[in-house]
Amino acid sequence: MDRERITRAQTVMEREDLDALVCRLPENVLLLSGHWPLNGWSFLLFPRDGKPTCIVPHCDEREAQEELWEADCVSFVFGVLEAGNPYEDIAARLKDATAGKRYARVGFEAGFESVAPPWNAAEPAIPAAATSAMLEGVFGRGRLVDATRVLNELRARKTPMEQAKLKRTNEVATLGLHVFHDSVGPGVTGVELVGLVEHAIMLRGTGQKDARRVRAFAQVSTGAAETAVGYRPMEITTTRKLGTGDLALLELAVVVDGFWCDRTRVCAAGAPTEKQLEVFEAVRNAQEAAIGAVRPGATAGQVDEAARAIIRDAGYEKEFVHVTGHGLGLRYHEPTPLICPGSALALEVGMYHTVEPGVYFPEMGGIRIEDNVVVTEAGAEVYGPFEKTLA
Amino acid sequence: MDRERITRAQTVMEREDLDALVCRLPENVLLLSGHWPLNGWSFLLFPRDGKPTCIVPHCDEREAQEELWEADCVSFVFGVLEAGNPYEDIAARLKDATAGKRYARVGFEAGFESVAPPWNAAEPAIPAAATSAMLEGVFGRGRLVDATRVLNELRARKTPMEQAKLKRTNEVATLGLHVFHDSVGPGVTGVELVGLVEHAIMLRGTGQKDARRVRAFAQVSTGAAETAVGYRPMEITTTRKLGTGDLALLELAVVVDGFWCDRTRVCAAGAPTEKQLEVFEAVRNAQEAAIGAVRPGATAGQVDEAARAIIRDAGYEKEFVHVTGHGLGLRYHEPTPLICPGSALALEVGMYHTVEPGVYFPEMGGIRIEDNVVVTEAGAEVYGPFEKTLA
Repeated sequence: MDRERITRAQTVMEREDLDALVCRLPENVLLLSGHWPLNGWSFLLFPRDGKPTCIVPHCDEREAQEELWEADCVSFVFGVLEAGNPYEDIAARLKDATAGKRYARVGFEAGFESVAPPWNAAEPAIPAAATSAMLEGVFGRGRLVDATRVLNELRARKTPMEQAKLKRTNEVATLGLHVFHDSVGPGVTGVELVGLVEHAIMLRGTGQKDARRVRAFAQVSTGAAETAVGYRPMEITTTRKLGTGDLALLELAVVVDGFWCDRTRVCAAGAPTEKQLEVFEAVRNAQEAAIGAVRPGATAGQVDEAARAIIRDAGYEKEFVHVTGHGLGLRYHEPTPLICPGSALALEVGMYHTVEPGVYFPEMGGIRIEDNVVVTEAGAEVYGPFEKTLA
Repeated sequence: MDRERITRAQTVMEREDLDALVCRLPENVLLLSGHWPLNGWSFLLFPRDGKPTCIVPHCDEREAQEELWEADCVSFVFGVLEAGNPYEDIAARLKDATAGKRYARVGFEAGFESVAPPWNAAEPAIPAAATSAMLEGVFGRGRLVDATRVLNELRARKTPMEQAKLKRTNEVATLGLHVFHDSVGPGVTGVELVGLVEHAIMLRGTGQKDARRVRAFAQVSTGAAETAVGYRPMEITTTRKLGTGDLALLELAVVVDGFWCDRTRVCAAGAPTEKQLEVFEAVRNAQEAAIGAVRPGATAGQVDEAARAIIRDAGYEKEFVHVTGHGLGLRYHEPTPLICPGSALALEVGMYHTVEPGVYFPEMGGIRIEDNVVVTEAGAEVYGPFEKTLA
């Protein structure tokens, strides 16, 4: 049980005058209860005082019981003929869980415009109009408060238990980075590389250090035209065959039991050109300088500048079009810390973020190197370190 | 360009007195424009009269231009240092697109509590508080109307163009069903089967009939304890090795360029038991009877009963715990038609749904067979037919 997480949540709720939080997004249920729901049909009521209650579909009760730290677990019949209206059943159980207490202010997930999918990512369930109406019915009109900012604040600093999970995810991700490095070559396609990387991570990652639910989401752009926009949040991977000298850029998200990493490597098919090697060297130096600049009290702007100065000196500043890094953890991207120019945000121990400088040329294509670090007392720890070579 | 889809949308909007629809969920942008966005940062303004406008991230403009039927495509700078606040940029472009018209009623996606992920399913973007606030700012307070019901109604009957896409998705899915049938055996794990099925579909499916973005989401339960709850909407796939005589149940979602299918096959590792064969036979007969009952004008309840009567006669009615089928198409599940006991809903040409009777015993495990059919003038057409055998 993550006592530190519970205490931090209670402290922030006190400051924000929140009597309870109620969540259905699996990422937030996991944050506050230890249970990573199979999909978004498990609700967590987390009161500031007293034991939380997790309301779960009857068929998911075993997994919930195994994972929950200390919440009471109550179930409702779901997905079968004898099931009732799930909103009515959840509302009744939420009412029971409040045990007659009348909360003045209840925080809920009104503002999550990006969501983490569950292990089976085919159809995430999310809070929309029916959830809001149901929660208003339970807690009373005017008593619900958007807790998105509060939840994101809680997520900005990872506890030691969360850090251990995030480290494991990065270790699992290196299984895919290995396969990528070993497989890039003339004639191979982006789709083939995605297939190999995702397959290796699921097969070899599941079971590693007790990992139960492992999934990779890879994107591989190949050649100049594709990798030149390889900074896109979502890329289309094609069946184009790698030509000799082409770049292949792997953008890789991996989730292990609800904890995410976000890594990038780039390789040349065949011998790299001198220009490619020059750019790669600058990007690698920039990335290592930024990692070296990470420490408690350093500002996000200083870390960004550590990378950007090296790219500027190498003459590629205009082509380094994006930020140096972003937060993540219970999702592929989290808002804090954003490692960007001019940010005065002071890094704190437990913050977990990407370090990913990249340089993109229309003729040559794009080169980015991305690792994930946690801020420690001593500086930065790189999780799941992996070699950086273009060849 | 899908003229029939456009006309149907305009007709329903007239009946509902909607001047425009505005969508950001990729599934609805695709429905009304032909473009399947890379993630949920493309907005479509679809006025009842006049040309639609699609507002897309600058880096996704090429794909949008290639796919859009007839919408004006305008872009905003996204995801790079020089980008502004995306909501402000999108709002400005929506205002421009209205060209000074003052819409009295604008439909938007307030009520989607399940969403289809884009090809890279790692982080779906969805409409929440910031989207609602932005749209209220553009169109005026009190002018936004929840169009979830209207959009779902439009999606309930597929046009011939959509049907062709859904057929292709099912054909791609059979690549995975083949691999599953060929790979089940003693010693194999659920995780291995998921990996093989997903890998085969991505590798062999991409490019098939010009398919560009192909992804499979498989779940395999093995043995009695797991398959006995194999009706769960989301299953956990484990590294448990199949024993001789164990069942392996594959639940498979596949998306090809935004169009979904939902299939199930079950195989025994080694020789099936007599009981398994008996149950399998009943489930297969039930499935085929239900498919045989599908025709325009038949009620969903009649189709359900066609399957349920056979299972009842075989003595397994209590173990057939779920509905016979559900709608789908632009998502893994859609609300219409729900093929369930007592439903008076009359099937119509173009409806597309699963037919998936299943029987679940704690000791033996679960057996389900699931195919996808479209309602035709002549009855039902099964898309991507595939053999049904337990051995």
